[in-house]
Amino acid sequence: MNGDEAEQQNMRVAELVSGIREGQPRALAKAITQAESTRADHQGCARRVLDALLPDTGQAIRVGITGVPGVGKSTFIEVLGLHLLALGHRVAVLAVDPSSSLGGGAILGDKTRMELLARAPGAYIRPSPTSGALGGVAAHTREAMLLCEAAGYDVILVETVGVGQSETAVAGMTDSFVLLQLPNAGDDLQAIKKGVVELADLIVYNKADLDPLASEVAAGQMKSALTLLRPVSQHWRPPVLQVCATRGDGVAPFWATILAHHKAMQDSGELVRKRRRQALDWMWGLIDGSLRARFEQHARVRAALPIQVAAVLAGTVSPTTAAAALLDAMSAPEMPLQ
Amino acid sequence: MNGDEAEQQNMRVAELVSGIREGQPRALAKAITQAESTRADHQGCARRVLDALLPDTGQAIRVGITGVPGVGKSTFIEVLGLHLLALGHRVAVLAVDPSSSLGGGAILGDKTRMELLARAPGAYIRPSPTSGALGGVAAHTREAMLLCEAAGYDVILVETVGVGQSETAVAGMTDSFVLLQLPNAGDDLQAIKKGVVELADLIVYNKADLDPLASEVAAGQMKSALTLLRPVSQHWRPPVLQVCATRGDGVAPFWATILAHHKAMQDSGELVRKRRRQALDWMWGLIDGSLRARFEQHARVRAALPIQVAAVLAGTVSPTTAAAALLDAMSAPEMPLQ
Repeated sequence: MNGDEAEQQNMRVAELVSGIREGQPRALAKAITQAESTRADHQGCARRVLDALLPDTGQAIRVGITGVPGVGKSTFIEVLGLHLLALGHRVAVLAVDPSSSLGGGAILGDKTRMELLARAPGAYIRPSPTSGALGGVAAHTREAMLLCEAAGYDVILVETVGVGQSETAVAGMTDSFVLLQLPNAGDDLQAIKKGVVELADLIVYNKADLDPLASEVAAGQMKSALTLLRPVSQHWRPPVLQVCATRGDGVAPFWATILAHHKAMQDSGELVRKRRRQALDWMWGLIDGSLRARFEQHARVRAALPIQVAAVLAGTVSPTTAAAALLDAMSAPEMPLQ
Repeated sequence: MNGDEAEQQNMRVAELVSGIREGQPRALAKAITQAESTRADHQGCARRVLDALLPDTGQAIRVGITGVPGVGKSTFIEVLGLHLLALGHRVAVLAVDPSSSLGGGAILGDKTRMELLARAPGAYIRPSPTSGALGGVAAHTREAMLLCEAAGYDVILVETVGVGQSETAVAGMTDSFVLLQLPNAGDDLQAIKKGVVELADLIVYNKADLDPLASEVAAGQMKSALTLLRPVSQHWRPPVLQVCATRGDGVAPFWATILAHHKAMQDSGELVRKRRRQALDWMWGLIDGSLRARFEQHARVRAALPIQVAAVLAGTVSPTTAAAALLDAMSAPEMPLQ
């Protein structure tokens, strides 16, 4: 970067910082786009913006929401968002969806899914970054979250569709993690992946109106399952709620429960500890991801990797030897490949 | 390594390989010790031994066993081991216990805990490696497992006390993962960590004789919890058993269930897929661990790390910026530190 370019970047950073502080949606959107860019200068700019705004972050309530397709996440989030706007909150809706890079099925890709909320003043909806592995997608959503907080959004809702490890990523960036369930247990059980229930601070049965009895039974079973499976926290015991998002039933009690969870964590000091741990985990995740990417991009590693993987799968080379050979390939002094 | 040293290592490798093939416990113990050594030449020797013996591995049934302290793991494993010896099996008992490096509470550290089994011909008991982070401990246990298989042990029992992520590590190296539970739900719930139940292929209530009714109730609740929480596998549904290890009650049905699980996985092709995935995960785990270790040992990273971590925790620098600064520190061209 020469002097002129540096000067230009300084101006761009200053402009974005003040624009976001003033709550300009365009400045916010632009900063998030820079963070999601693959260009180093854009990323550098986004980092400087974020660092300048860091003191303005941290005041929001961060809520993660997951559930299988069809559970009604969009409707629930829209109704919840409108409820929060009516209470005077400013609401940002973000997403972690690694599948969106594959095209099709992207959550929040289409703002018309939450048309009312998208048009409401005081709400900001940002689709999932559309490229990159989960680590990158989740990192960008974290950056977007902090930028939204600096722009004055005091409730952040992070949606995930639950592909692979995305629930863990979202639980790792939010204060409260919510699992949306369907009451007709037959269908959705297949989609409940290992460990997701145990990440949840709150479990919500949506579409409770379709079959109130089934919903009651499912919620009751879940309650006793949680008693059995979860460590009994001193500060919080995950409640099971029933809502009907399309009618708006149960949305106010839901938000009251989120606030109760937030207060319990704040009073016990758990919130501060959790956010600190999340920040460090985020840093190490970026470092590990970058170390792995450099490794995989190394010319000799790229040449040797398919051979070693095939040998491990065939059982002719142990994983220990394969790992050592690949690490040696990277560390060996550079020589022109014959 | 000069010519003489290379010659000596060749001889040592050949000796260990043939000794292990003949089932000599001393050769087996020596190879495992070499694998656990921090010396590069010992590790290199162990890798060569393992690679030579790789075709002789894979025939054993690998069972992971976890449970909170006091659940009776040692007694259960000893009684199970003796039962298996009586059936004509050769049994190796290994452990993953990162806490053993901290001194105190080491599982299998004291062979007198399984005195009968330790003295029985046909059984081999190896304590957990006593140093290193979980990744290293688990990797050494994997190596020990393969070496035991090459030495003719056809049942491998891997015990873990459940510190941190050790259950995930053990579930990631075994065919069947067993959770031992106590029937008096009041006490032990605290100790069941998130996600462990959902790793289990089989759940066993031990000490069922202490309070048969409570055990019956706890097992029933767990059964319905599993129905609700687990994905319904086409090939396996985790059963819930009750045993009394001190009396030997239920041990034969337990083993029959393990065999049924093994057969279901073998028939469906899941066993082959699972073991391949485990081998690749192992390889990548070693690579990631080594990349991280090199990073943390880098002089400039070591100098900068405490500062960046403190800044992230204080909220003055974003995790993104801290990660970038540390990665830059490692990549910058070497310069003498002032």
